[in-house]
Amino acid sequence: MRLNVPFLPRKAAHRDPLGEAQRLSLGLLESCGETQGTLTATRLAAALASLDDETAQAYDLWLVDKLGPDAAMLGASIERWLERPDAAHAAQLTRSAEPRRQELLRRVNTAPCGTRHLVDWRARLLRQLAQCPALAPLEADLRHLLASWFNRGFLTLRPITWDSPARLLERLIAHEAVHNIAGWSDLRGRLEGDRRCYGFFHPALPDTPLIFVEVALTDHVSEAIAPLLDHPSSRTAPDRPSTAIFYSISNCEPGLRGLQFGNFLIKQIVADLKAEFPTLTTFATLSPIPGLVRWLDAGGRSLSREGDDPRRLCALYLTGSAPDGTPGRPRDPVAAFHLGNGAELWRINPHADVSPKGIAQSEGMMVNYVYREQDLVANHERFAQHGHVARSREVAALIDGPAASPWRWTLPWAHAHRLSPPQEKQPCQ
Amino acid sequence: MRLNVPFLPRKAAHRDPLGEAQRLSLGLLESCGETQGTLTATRLAAALASLDDETAQAYDLWLVDKLGPDAAMLGASIERWLERPDAAHAAQLTRSAEPRRQELLRRVNTAPCGTRHLVDWRARLLRQLAQCPALAPLEADLRHLLASWFNRGFLTLRPITWDSPARLLERLIAHEAVHNIAGWSDLRGRLEGDRRCYGFFHPALPDTPLIFVEVALTDHVSEAIAPLLDHPSSRTAPDRPSTAIFYSISNCEPGLRGLQFGNFLIKQIVADLKAEFPTLTTFATLSPIPGLVRWLDAGGRSLSREGDDPRRLCALYLTGSAPDGTPGRPRDPVAAFHLGNGAELWRINPHADVSPKGIAQSEGMMVNYVYREQDLVANHERFAQHGHVARSREVAALIDGPAASPWRWTLPWAHAHRLSPPQEKQPCQ
Amino acid sequence: MRLNVPFLPRKAAHRDPLGEAQRLSLGLLESCGETQGTLTATRLAAALASLDDETAQAYDLWLVDKLGPDAAMLGASIERWLERPDAAHAAQLTRSAEPRRQELLRRVNTAPCGTRHLVDWRARLLRQLAQCPALAPLEADLRHLLASWFNRGFLTLRPITWDSPARLLERLIAHEAVHNIAGWSDLRGRLEGDRRCYGFFHPALPDTPLIFVEVALTDHVSEAIAPLLDHPSSRTAPDRPSTAIFYSISNCEPGLRGLQFGNFLIKQIVADLKAEFPTLTTFATLSPIPGLVRWLDAGGRSLSREGDDPRRLCALYLTGSAPDGTPGRPRDPVAAFHLGNGAELWRINPHADVSPKGIAQSEGMMVNYVYREQDLVANHERFAQHGHVARSREVAALIDGPAASPWRWTLPWAHAHRLSPPQEKQPCQ
Amino acid sequence: MRLNVPFLPRKAAHRDPLGEAQRLSLGLLESCGETQGTLTATRLAAALASLDDETAQAYDLWLVDKLGPDAAMLGASIERWLERPDAAHAAQLTRSAEPRRQELLRRVNTAPCGTRHLVDWRARLLRQLAQCPALAPLEADLRHLLASWFNRGFLTLRPITWDSPARLLERLIAHEAVHNIAGWSDLRGRLEGDRRCYGFFHPALPDTPLIFVEVALTDHVSEAIAPLLDHPSSRTAPDRPSTAIFYSISNCEPGLRGLQFGNFLIKQIVADLKAEFPTLTTFATLSPIPGLVRWLDAGGRSLSREGDDPRRLCALYLTGSAPDGTPGRPRDPVAAFHLGNGAELWRINPHADVSPKGIAQSEGMMVNYVYREQDLVANHERFAQHGHVARSREVAALIDGPAASPWRWTLPWAHAHRLSPPQEKQPCQ
Repeated sequence: MRLNVPFLPRKAAHRDPLGEAQRLSLGLLESCGETQGTLTATRLAAALASLDDETAQAYDLWLVDKLGPDAAMLGASIERWLERPDAAHAAQLTRSAEPRRQELLRRVNTAPCGTRHLVDWRARLLRQLAQCPALAPLEADLRHLLASWFNRGFLTLRPITWDSPARLLERLIAHEAVHNIAGWSDLRGRLEGDRRCYGFFHPALPDTPLIFVEVALTDHVSEAIAPLLDHPSSRTAPDRPSTAIFYSISNCEPGLRGLQFGNFLIKQIVADLKAEFPTLTTFATLSPIPGLVRWLDAGGRSLSREGDDPRRLCALYLTGSAPDGTPGRPRDPVAAFHLGNGAELWRINPHADVSPKGIAQSEGMMVNYVYREQDLVANHERFAQHGHVARSREVAALIDGPAASPWRWTLPWAHAHRLSPPQEKQPCQ
Repeated sequence: MRLNVPFLPRKAAHRDPLGEAQRLSLGLLESCGETQGTLTATRLAAALASLDDETAQAYDLWLVDKLGPDAAMLGASIERWLERPDAAHAAQLTRSAEPRRQELLRRVNTAPCGTRHLVDWRARLLRQLAQCPALAPLEADLRHLLASWFNRGFLTLRPITWDSPARLLERLIAHEAVHNIAGWSDLRGRLEGDRRCYGFFHPALPDTPLIFVEVALTDHVSEAIAPLLDHPSSRTAPDRPSTAIFYSISNCEPGLRGLQFGNFLIKQIVADLKAEFPTLTTFATLSPIPGLVRWLDAGGRSLSREGDDPRRLCALYLTGSAPDGTPGRPRDPVAAFHLGNGAELWRINPHADVSPKGIAQSEGMMVNYVYREQDLVANHERFAQHGHVARSREVAALIDGPAASPWRWTLPWAHAHRLSPPQEKQPCQ
Repeated sequence: MRLNVPFLPRKAAHRDPLGEAQRLSLGLLESCGETQGTLTATRLAAALASLDDETAQAYDLWLVDKLGPDAAMLGASIERWLERPDAAHAAQLTRSAEPRRQELLRRVNTAPCGTRHLVDWRARLLRQLAQCPALAPLEADLRHLLASWFNRGFLTLRPITWDSPARLLERLIAHEAVHNIAGWSDLRGRLEGDRRCYGFFHPALPDTPLIFVEVALTDHVSEAIAPLLDHPSSRTAPDRPSTAIFYSISNCEPGLRGLQFGNFLIKQIVADLKAEFPTLTTFATLSPIPGLVRWLDAGGRSLSREGDDPRRLCALYLTGSAPDGTPGRPRDPVAAFHLGNGAELWRINPHADVSPKGIAQSEGMMVNYVYREQDLVANHERFAQHGHVARSREVAALIDGPAASPWRWTLPWAHAHRLSPPQEKQPCQ
Repeated sequence: MRLNVPFLPRKAAHRDPLGEAQRLSLGLLESCGETQGTLTATRLAAALASLDDETAQAYDLWLVDKLGPDAAMLGASIERWLERPDAAHAAQLTRSAEPRRQELLRRVNTAPCGTRHLVDWRARLLRQLAQCPALAPLEADLRHLLASWFNRGFLTLRPITWDSPARLLERLIAHEAVHNIAGWSDLRGRLEGDRRCYGFFHPALPDTPLIFVEVALTDHVSEAIAPLLDHPSSRTAPDRPSTAIFYSISNCEPGLRGLQFGNFLIKQIVADLKAEFPTLTTFATLSPIPGLVRWLDAGGRSLSREGDDPRRLCALYLTGSAPDGTPGRPRDPVAAFHLGNGAELWRINPHADVSPKGIAQSEGMMVNYVYREQDLVANHERFAQHGHVARSREVAALIDGPAASPWRWTLPWAHAHRLSPPQEKQPCQ
């Protein structure tokens, strides 16, 4: 299915684009019968798409200012509610408190590609929010709407293979956020043989996964990323893989940031993989530690202090523990994601990602989180309620052990290569 | 796709089903991570499905009472808003005014068949509302949610043919509300040869059209229903049909009542039919007049008064006009639907449906509404704003003409056959 | 996909339909470039479809007479072959010996629905062959071609469910040959809950299974058909079925008679069912014995002879054994089919099918054949080479035991109900 | 659908692979019941796939020698036929003259991917035939079988777009034979905006088009290839294209060489394009002239002779005419293809393809053939029967005009760049 129509007649630019967009918006809200609703929605979507960034922002601020709740109705509802706060008056208040722009956004969705338009709209808002905090109410409305529409009940998990449409695969190349895909041949290597890929899809955006996960089938828990990224075409799958390594999770839609799909995703993939490969017993990640170096720098810490096992410092960071082992909450977004899912912090791997990006963000360290079905709920509960991080014996020993270990760590060259990680793409958080 | 799973392990009934449902509901709302969210949602959906009607109503009332907006948060938001009614405080108030059960309903949707569950839930509420008006806030929440989810932008129009799945066709037989389908052979006759059928579908309910329309391809505007319902298997389509008659529109989901899809539907079907049969020039309905007899009886009027053209009285009813021709708003639900779409009241046909149901509801009269693309918007506007009913010259003459015409009308036998129309099915309104 | 196009312009009948068909046939054979080939093929197919039976037979005989191998070319090839019978001359002879009508048939296949046309053509030939043996060479050509085209490699096994197209399900009702399907509700009962159905499909006939098999999931080897045919809508599947009963196998295409697909089918279904229900351990049929009564009557035998176990006579019939147990070849077509597949004759069930048809053909007896994967090849070999029928201990005891057992058999009422079985439908052989 | 199964257990090499293949072949032919047929076919296909080229050829020759027609049966049939050459004896002879390896090949097709195996087998035979003419009878058998199976009636035309599976698109890059595809970005440019691509597909080879055609939508008949091969991503389609240019036709399957699909293909694409773009009035090719330079060299001719219009020589070559204009048959394979389809030789374009390949094969010249629906049959007839080449007035003037025109032609640089065209890929002939 194509979302963009190549043969649309080109429209002449409007002389007062902001006024036109406002006029269409009011018209759309007033169209009580829907006879012309879709037509107006289509025109409005086109008008909005043609606005330059500055005018678009002016339009957005107009929405915030002028299309909030109807003040008179809201005042009356509040009065009645304060007088007698019962369920009926609450319901009335709920209705009055909804900003009119919510209905406008729902009607924009009736235009062809309306959903795509709204998702891209929120992506733009998220970019502009820092500079223009006044846009926050509109962003909140869009988030509310999209969170409702992209409800897990409407998403489907699908394998992504070399038989998937090129248009879809192209999105993987564009949005892989963890380990860059070098081209179509590299991509093919990540879909076949001993590799698998899965994505979550929504019916209104059929051409793009909302989020996708890359998996390697192996016979051990991987301790470095390079062997996973190297996939000669002759490679075949192990007959009876024991282990599935989730080595990359990426979002495709910046406009859906914060609507967490990833946790559902991993649990469904585990089920699918088990059905296809009954020999699988271990499900683990090989994950980056994007915030490690930032945290080290902020605290004036260094992995290369003599006499210290650098994995200890990393474990303290990942578990949010103080140097004496007192538990806290992890500050690393990837850690927060997997631990929040109920996974266990299993092993810290030095020298695991010696690419410039890996060195820059974590001195080359990576970490395995292990998903054990029987422990997920309990782990999650203890993490959500008490911040307790499930950890393997090995990691526990690192944290609880003596602060100074005999192991020696030097990475003089690493500091020389520290680079800022690219910001445009979205690793899943 | 199957929505019902035949091999689910049967559960023993819970000893305190209401308490269990309440406990699961609170658990679902609190599951901040989603690790166990879907699991709890699935359990809750199952628990709700097993409640008897009385307990279900008790549960619903508990939702209304206990899971409204958080009173403390709402109070604080109101205070801040009254102090300074700006956009930020409005946004806060919007958030606080949302009842917590809205989020609960969204989470129920993550269960398998969650959407089906919610739609059926609202269907039950609509049935109970008259007896138990206190349920209204919950019904409003469900309506709000479903209206958002069944947004036109997420619906697809698809032809329904003899090649459609039997599971889907079965729904047509069950839900045809205007002219009963006698069985599979009758159904087949309505899908092939010179007949077409179209439905609106939502991805979360793939097995059922939300609404469907039956069309006959003819060479004139039909004036009676019997020839359209009679379809010998040998019938073939006219080579170059001039006219498409929409002779039946039915909803399949009582739980979506009031979410109007029908107007979009007809306009899209017109476009599809034109593409398939370029010779088509006229698009008209042959519609029932469900409220005519009720209106006649209420006013002590009679079609069979001597010396009067009975079509005049019918025209007055359909246009909402007073006996002297003063315009009003039509009281007939089918008329309101088509006129609201911008169609024109074209011809009144006596003796058009002499089935018991046709006699009972309209003394056998039916009406043609004509859809003319170029007039739809203007007709709709004048109808929506001024209640003006677009009418053909023939109908205008009936209304404006002398009250007593020489035409004579007797239907003594009709009164003997007056039956109450069946209530379970939903003609589109 | 529709195979019949409802809006084809109706053609006036040709004045010399036979001559026209012959002219088009020669034209089609001569169209060396294919520019007009498909057009001519389409015209020829239409011309043939409009022939009455008599003219069609005249045309067929013309094909046999006039479009055999080119006599001159064949003579020359024979001469060369006789002179030097090497591979090259053999190849030439092969080419020359092909009748020209083979190429004609291949070209007819390029018309829309050409394959359907050829399959129906052979069906007609098979009906006329007894009256008109001269048609045999044409039937042989069609059989050769269809056997090549309906090669197992081009067929796909697909489950048939209540989600299948109504057009396809309609074929099951029409072609069920063993236990009549009473209507759509009965059909639905055979597709859901504890029932399954599978069919073999060819891409050129997408609307119809070539053959289909009905299966019941049970917890024992069924000994009577009535419980299998009774399926109240409330019935659900056993959680952990142990046994799959193949209780009906039917062909849909009389034009493909003799092209045996059934053996492949059963083995693939066994694999599919095992994947879906890992608890399945036993795969058996509950099969009719269509030839039993005919055989009894022919030999003046009777099941109801006092003092004899009637199952013994049945076992002798099914194994083709003489009364003293000397092995032979079974004369029963259904037995030949399953034994040829490598199944084992497992149990004989009196009073298993007391319908008029069951009484008429086998005095109500039915038989279970068991498919055991590990034995299929050996059983098949011994059957194919020596006619040895694999049998259970129980059946062996019946055959080898004393001719007169104490068990007593009376079916006086049975003889009163003996009816001729219907002939139009095709049980799989 | 995947045709290659990545997890197949690896088999140890057989010690006597030729003997094993022969043993399996005889076993497969003898398997009268099919119980073990598919199993043996699968083993044989695997055994054949593992043969080295030399052993494979030995096996092929064994098939030619030993699995021809049964000599005794053939002798008897011949005798009977010579005695009385009637239809029945002819049918018997047809049967006896079929080499036994034909049945073997049909049974190999029942293996998974059997069709793929047979197509690749013929591709190998075609490569070896020149060195080993004794293989001809086997190649003839395969060709006969494949021609029957890839009958036009079993093929479907499908558009190939950027939404097609990557596995399929990969085949276009690999098999484009006329104008090399530089990579995925170049490929995308040939599928979107003002470009279209169509392929013919067979159900047994779903991952690959048998042949594909690339089309550009333009507003004039293109006179050079470079603008068609240059497609910036910003390019959009003309709103109302008047002309469709077929600028590349390639086969994907060397094993299907000589089974002509291309003519059907173009006519169907014309119909599809007309339906999508009603403004299209002209359908033309921009075609290479692969044999021109070879023909010039063979005849010691030169385009650059002073005082001559070089297009005249080219026109003589393409029409097969003698220098005095006497008509003949064209020697160019691409010309033969389009003229055989009924197209008209419309214009000769100098400097149309100045790539090394274009210079090498035709001194940079290309030609437009125009497809006019109303003329196709007549053009084809005159071409097939009399070799008459349909030509435009412009081309006719070139041929009939004075041999020496004032136009001057120099391509000194061209000769310097003459390269051998690549041989591995197959332009459609």
